[in-house]
Amino acid sequence: MKRLLLLYLSLFAMTACTPKATNESPSIQREKATMQKEIESVLTVQTKAWNNGDIDAFMEHYWKSDQLTFSSGGKTTRGWQKTKDNYKKRYPNKETMGQLKFSGLEVTKLGDEAALVLGHWQLTRKDDKPGGNFSLTFRFMDGRWLIVHDHTSLLPAPK
Amino acid sequence: MKRLLLLYLSLFAMTACTPKATNESPSIQREKATMQKEIESVLTVQTKAWNNGDIDAFMEHYWKSDQLTFSSGGKTTRGWQKTKDNYKKRYPNKETMGQLKFSGLEVTKLGDEAALVLGHWQLTRKDDKPGGNFSLTFRFMDGRWLIVHDHTSLLPAPK
Repeated sequence: MKRLLLLYLSLFAMTACTPKATNESPSIQREKATMQKEIESVLTVQTKAWNNGDIDAFMEHYWKSDQLTFSSGGKTTRGWQKTKDNYKKRYPNKETMGQLKFSGLEVTKLGDEAALVLGHWQLTRKDDKPGGNFSLTFRFMDGRWLIVHDHTSLLPAPK
Repeated sequence: MKRLLLLYLSLFAMTACTPKATNESPSIQREKATMQKEIESVLTVQTKAWNNGDIDAFMEHYWKSDQLTFSSGGKTTRGWQKTKDNYKKRYPNKETMGQLKFSGLEVTKLGDEAALVLGHWQLTRKDDKPGGNFSLTFRFMDGRWLIVHDHTSLLPAPK
């Protein structure tokens, strides 16, 4: 009887210490974690480029294709070059670029080679702090994760 | 010599009539066409529901989950119920709902069970015609295509 009780207790302890059950195999969990790290690292590198005033380096993580789409304010810009031109027009110097910070990143795997990434962005500039949120569609192409679509929204300016 | 010329001409005619070459197998092309039709049909059904003043039916095509995300104007709403509540608050009756039209749909396959859908929306109401664009992430779940993320932007009102 005592041995049976010990067995129960051991089983209970094992269950209690087991990580929360998911339907996913360890290999899928590892794959997701890797993808998440890789994408977060892309966004960190992008932030650094922005904060160095380097839009060219920032744009390296967008798909260099006429099929890249960037939506904002009800309109969609098509193509990598046009997207880059718009960034340079809107942020002509380090002062207008300010310091960029991404936060609240949420990475969702979509199939083996795509992901949806939600997050918040904020610029700290001399006179204002514009910010908002974004939805990025990433695809794994040519051995790396690239943004193929970006929908960015701006919070209304505080009154 | 004449037969050789005929052979050349036949080969030329065959090449000219062959559909534009892609890297995709016929089965992948068929699968894409089916997915596109299914998703376009979801959006048609959604438009009809809206134009009948039926937000409940409109919401049937969003993922009924706390993980549904709806981004607009720099903010993200979480969960199916909250998204529906917001729609009902913002559009309390048929007059405010107006007549909805989607246009310029672009469906991009992401893996086997997900798609990115870009498009424009426009409401025709008694006093105004608000419109803008959207980026929808669809997933194939429980045998049908559901919107799991929606990022919608509004064009600035004409001055």
